[in-house]
Amino acid sequence: MKRKSDGVDSGPIIRRKQDGSLEFQHDALTIEEPLEIRLGRKILATTMRTPGHDEELAAGFLVSEGIVREPDQIEKITRADDNIVAVELIGGLKPKLSSARRFGTISTSCGICGKNSIADIRQNFPEIAAGKNVRIEIKTLLSLPLLLQKQQGDFARTGGIHAAGIFDLNGRPKVVREDIGRHNAVDKVIGRAFLDRLLPLDKHLLLVSGRASFEIVQKALAAGLPIVAAVSAPSTLAVIFSRESNQTLIGFLRPPSFNIYSHVERVKLNSD
Amino acid sequence: MKRKSDGVDSGPIIRRKQDGSLEFQHDALTIEEPLEIRLGRKILATTMRTPGHDEELAAGFLVSEGIVREPDQIEKITRADDNIVAVELIGGLKPKLSSARRFGTISTSCGICGKNSIADIRQNFPEIAAGKNVRIEIKTLLSLPLLLQKQQGDFARTGGIHAAGIFDLNGRPKVVREDIGRHNAVDKVIGRAFLDRLLPLDKHLLLVSGRASFEIVQKALAAGLPIVAAVSAPSTLAVIFSRESNQTLIGFLRPPSFNIYSHVERVKLNSD
Repeated sequence: MKRKSDGVDSGPIIRRKQDGSLEFQHDALTIEEPLEIRLGRKILATTMRTPGHDEELAAGFLVSEGIVREPDQIEKITRADDNIVAVELIGGLKPKLSSARRFGTISTSCGICGKNSIADIRQNFPEIAAGKNVRIEIKTLLSLPLLLQKQQGDFARTGGIHAAGIFDLNGRPKVVREDIGRHNAVDKVIGRAFLDRLLPLDKHLLLVSGRASFEIVQKALAAGLPIVAAVSAPSTLAVIFSRESNQTLIGFLRPPSFNIYSHVERVKLNSD
Repeated sequence: MKRKSDGVDSGPIIRRKQDGSLEFQHDALTIEEPLEIRLGRKILATTMRTPGHDEELAAGFLVSEGIVREPDQIEKITRADDNIVAVELIGGLKPKLSSARRFGTISTSCGICGKNSIADIRQNFPEIAAGKNVRIEIKTLLSLPLLLQKQQGDFARTGGIHAAGIFDLNGRPKVVREDIGRHNAVDKVIGRAFLDRLLPLDKHLLLVSGRASFEIVQKALAAGLPIVAAVSAPSTLAVIFSRESNQTLIGFLRPPSFNIYSHVERVKLNSD
């Protein structure tokens, strides 16, 4: 009944094995608990997340939502409770108007949540600069999924967790985080990089272990990431958005194969 | 460049094949577009969903949130636009208090979204009745994933879509729906069953193609479903919740194997 580093014990369960026999077993489960993110005295969001790195999650969420752009805009992030983090902005700072009306009873890190109309969905972040200086080699790209998995460590065994990683163009991992929610995993890596004053991440790549939705690509844009790669499928809106924002979107990154959906110029297809 | 039934064409992409060669290709992508759900004149939720069965999605969302319990509480569901559905409740009906304060700028079908504090998360739906009359045979259980996949049809090929199905205890599918968001797929099947006056689904099972989070199990409880099965992992909170709500929770349903996390009494383990 010991707690494991890769989740908590499920308690006794019944497992039907390959040969049809039944046995009592224990299973390591991914922890899912609610996190309330407060901005001042208001509840900004409640999200179901895997505990750990909650301050990063809160910071990344604020960045993704366009509420803060510089670490200095945050006075402090404090933990009010196991499942509550409170963010104080510096004195006098008013969140920008387009976000302000989302404050109150709203929202979560699932991305689209908290937008109060379709018109609000496309947030205004500057598009990625064009240019030839941000490029990645195929062999580097192909090395990333295994690197992400290695950084995940034991967690991957529960089979119920998403990972996100920020890598430089030489394939060196900067930060890797995991969460039961894929948007949370992305907020955590962006939040860490933000707090470390690494934004904009204009010479880096975001890799996610699952699918690439519109929200994932938008969060990457908020952090200035020019390349987004996903192990699984992108959605239509993710492709459309990445083309407009000048981001390179790679899907089904499963070595030796992958698909490039937009802005192929950032991938060195030959040894040019 | 033809549009396919299983998504829309991505436009030309570059695919790196197994042998390392590159080719221009087209890819079928799962459609992701925002849907705004209005209650009267207020925006209740905006969710990223795969278009289709939007009225069911809206109805299922209202059931899952505890806003309506009977189809007669809904005056009408109308389509205000491609991506907007508006629900009118019958004259004089006030949403119950615990939901009321969530109205406004809130929420989405991702489940937890829109809850404005941790205390709100556990909504009050009656727990499932105990008893020996709701039981499923192992061979029926093992037949379900393939049945779900067959009902999915071509959609499954895009690799970016979730499915949910409601089955009776003999393994007959009642309704199967797909969506880029797994909570949406569940809302759609529950919404369809609700509109067909089939709730409570006290002799049925919910199968989801992915993981079982707390939210999925809670939505199933709102529809009175005594058994929830998932092809992938459950979370800690899903297991805890199902034990308390008297629901049977099955995970990793990958024939010939599966795990039972709670209320095993509803699975006929022997020929008793």
